[in-house]
Order: sequence, then C-alpha cells, then structure tokens
Amino acid sequence: MTSSTSTQILERHALAEKTAREAGAVAFDYFQKRESLVIETKADPQDVVSIADRDVENIIRERVLSAFPEDGFLGEEYGLAAGSSGYTWVVDPIDGTSPFVNGMPNWCVSIAVLHEQKPVVGVIHVPCADELYSAAEGQGARLNGVALSIAAHKTIRNTPTGIGANHHVSPEVVGKIISDLMESGGNFLRLGSGALMLAYVAAGRLVGYYEPYMHAWDCLGGYCIVQEAGGWHLPFPVEGERLTKGAPVLAAGPGAVEDIKRIAGLTSKDVAAA
Amino acid sequence: MTSSTSTQILERHALAEKTAREAGAVAFDYFQKRESLVIETKADPQDVVSIADRDVENIIRERVLSAFPEDGFLGEEYGLAAGSSGYTWVVDPIDGTSPFVNGMPNWCVSIAVLHEQKPVVGVIHVPCADELYSAAEGQGARLNGVALSIAAHKTIRNTPTGIGANHHVSPEVVGKIISDLMESGGNFLRLGSGALMLAYVAAGRLVGYYEPYMHAWDCLGGYCIVQEAGGWHLPFPVEGERLTKGAPVLAAGPGAVEDIKRIAGLTSKDVAAA
Repeated sequence: MTSSTSTQILERHALAEKTAREAGAVAFDYFQKRESLVIETKADPQDVVSIADRDVENIIRERVLSAFPEDGFLGEEYGLAAGSSGYTWVVDPIDGTSPFVNGMPNWCVSIAVLHEQKPVVGVIHVPCADELYSAAEGQGARLNGVALSIAAHKTIRNTPTGIGANHHVSPEVVGKIISDLMESGGNFLRLGSGALMLAYVAAGRLVGYYEPYMHAWDCLGGYCIVQEAGGWHLPFPVEGERLTKGAPVLAAGPGAVEDIKRIAGLTSKDVAAA
Repeated sequence: MTSSTSTQILERHALAEKTAREAGAVAFDYFQKRESLVIETKADPQDVVSIADRDVENIIRERVLSAFPEDGFLGEEYGLAAGSSGYTWVVDPIDGTSPFVNGMPNWCVSIAVLHEQKPVVGVIHVPCADELYSAAEGQGARLNGVALSIAAHKTIRNTPTGIGANHHVSPEVVGKIISDLMESGGNFLRLGSGALMLAYVAAGRLVGYYEPYMHAWDCLGGYCIVQEAGGWHLPFPVEGERLTKGAPVLAAGPGAVEDIKRIAGLTSKDVAAA
C-alpha cells in the first residue's frame, strides 16, 4: 500500500467513525419513539423497514458524498451509486431492523469502505450498548478504543457460534446447520443482526458466524473488523453487479474456522470461487 | 385469595424487586471484571458457572431468609431448602452465564415466588440494559414501572419467536423445531438466556418462547410476568421433587399460542399432564 493510499484510507476511517456515531444517535432517537413509526414489510413479512432506516441512510450518504464526492455508495435502502475514486462505501443504516422495531437492543449501524475489492474500513456502532467497533486495514481492530485480538483457544465447543437465517434459504437447510453445529458440540445464538454478530466474533464473544445468504451491507464492515482482530472470513464477491447480490457469509476465530466451514458445507473449491 | 394472602404476596414482591436490583448490581460488578473470573463447566462444556453465580445466589438467599425464615428456597447453584410457610423462592442468580462469561449483555437475574404451586411473584433484572421486569399475581406486569400488555395482533409470522436449546435435547430435535417454525412463516432468535427471552415475550419483543427442557429457576419468574402481561404459559410441574427437574417451557402471546404449541408437538393431553 502506498503512503498516499494509506492516508486516503485513514481519512475515510475517521469519517466512518464520526458518521457512525452521528447515525447511531439519530437511529436511537427513532428507537425511543418506535411506537409511532410506520413499519413496512419487504418480500418477507419478517423483513421490515421504517422511515428510520431511510433517514439514517440519507444522513450517512450526505456526510460521505460531501467529503468524498467521487466515492461510490451502496446502501441497503437506496442501492448503488457508482463512483470514480476507487473507493465504495457500503452501508447498512440499521442492521437488525426486526429487533429495532420490536424494541430489542440488538441492532447497529454498519459502515464499510471497499478499495481494490477489499473492505479496508469497518465501523459498527451499537447505540443501546454504547459500543463502537472500528478497524482499518493494517491498523488493528478496536472496541471503544481498546484493541481486539481473538483468542486462539476458543472453539465451537467452548464458545457460542452465531447463526443467521432468512427466507432466501430453505427451513430444512437452516435446521440442518443448527443440528450439525450441535452434533459437533457447538451451540448457537441468533441475535437478529448479522453485523452485530460479526462484531461479537471480533470481540471474542462469539467464536464464529455463519449465514448462508447475506448482502454486502450486512457483512463488509464486520469482515474488516474480524480480519483486523486476527480472524478469518470468506471472501465476499464485490465485482460489479455482484456487489448488490447475496452470498454466503462466514467469519471465525482461528480455533473455529475449519469446524464452521465443515458445518457450512464449504469446500476449499467453494471458498476459492467465492 | 384472602387479603392476608394478598399482603403476604405483596411483601415478597417488594423484597424480590429490591433484592433483584441489589443482586444485579453485584453481578454487574463481576461482569466488568469477568476476565479474572475462574470459569468452571458443568456436564456440558457450554454450561458454565463462576463464583459470580454462587456469590449472587448467596446474597439473594440471605436477604430472603432473613426476612422470611420460614420460606423455602431453590437456587440453581445450591439446590432446594424446603420451608414451612407455603412460599418457595425459586432463583437463577445469573441466567445466561454463557453470554455473561463471554462478555455479551444478554443475561439477567431471575427471582420467582411460588405459592399453592403457582408463581405469584416474578422479577427479572437485566443490568446491562437497566431493565426491571416485575409482576405479582393480580397486579399486572411492569417494565421499569410501565405496564405491559401483549398485543393480540402479534403472531409468529410478524414477530420473532425465542428458542432455547441445550444438551438435554438431541440436535435433530432442535433442528426440526427451527425448520418447523420457519416453515410456518416464523423466524427465531436465541439470545442465550431463557429468562430474558420470557421477559421479552411479556414486553411483546418476542411473540413466544419455546425450549424443550428447562428448569424451574430459568422459567418461573418469566412465567409470572408473561401471565400478568396477558400471555399464556405451559404449567410447570412444581410438586415435591419435580420442582428440581427439567420440563418443557412454552410461553406466548395470545396470537401465537396455538402455532407454537403445534411446532412444539404439544397436544392438549401433554398440556394437561404437565
């Protein structure tokens, strides 16, 4: 990485942290008055969206494009606007909208920046817990300023594994993931926000996370943070239109990678092709 | 209920609230220094216990027995001491020890009081969220003082369902519960604390909770709160020695009871026999 690239990444990292804090505060205001929000459903009646998601995405896009007008921007709610700088922001304004609208604290704001097909910045803000997970390529990962490093002794047998599921995947496949994980001595949590569970992998709270089908905005911020905390993640396909499509998502600490890959049924060939 | 019984219940309810707050504060101190706790495992390596669990249970028992020396007391860590007053306290000092030792906020203190085989008091304190769920028979349920009432329009198709699992139940059975729930249009969360998920049912955050095998200390506090918030729960067998054994646990709002019973494979006969 040239020093000019490094500076460009650090500038974007600083903006991502500042914007995630601001966006989280706005989302938290909506959360406190959630009884009055109009909730709409997407294709799946459990996949919900509200004005809070849209408003928070607009705030993030405005802050990003006024600082870096040549950058690309992909948000969950309004889609992709390509850029010309080589940097693309990938944002989920509220990951865990179902917990959010139902009044649970397990939701977050997730911001990633892609450069040369890799997430080089990841910031996840969890307003209800007052936690900011943050990383930039080569700079390490931090939780509220404290460095994160995943312990190698954690395995699926001594630490819970996060699992995600949605209507893109058949109920039988999800049930089989759960039973295979338990058969291997693991146990699962599903908190309702994939980005939050990826942040928990970086913090060593979960030993890994697997969801058969997820979008870039759900995972790229968490992927950067996990990587910088010493974990491994499956590559996410980001070239051209593939950036807006779903793909399997898997991240884990060093003591759990092989077990979770096996449970996910991912061979080395799948991983290379991803 | 005679007015004297009612007074006896209200006195215990007041003590349960006060003690749950104190116990939660002590547990939270341990949580903040959790890196230095010695963690032991029980039969299952994912079923953990620490000095925090034992110390918090001792504090609760001391407060209860100094105020009501004739009451019975059953705690998760030290078992049952029978009483002679007709009241038995049933306590989980830290429900969700796995989230607790791994640094997640989803754990709680759960206190119930049984009278004539029914949980007549339930208090659940969630220190990381500063939430106190509280109910006494005939008095309604409250979250931080605000009355709770489960909305009838919530079903498994528009609100998440909580699921629990442990090594008492085969992985295949757990996988089938998950796939049957999703096949019926539901989705699941597993937060790692059954008592917390029962409190969330009372608050309308989850529409129901099902775990095939749980203990009295995990569920009786939540059951009282769910009942007083307008929900339904499976009876838990509390006569004699059965109080210390596991049983299926199911609680739900009115719009989800039949669906979750069906997914749990519970017939009317099972329910009557429980």
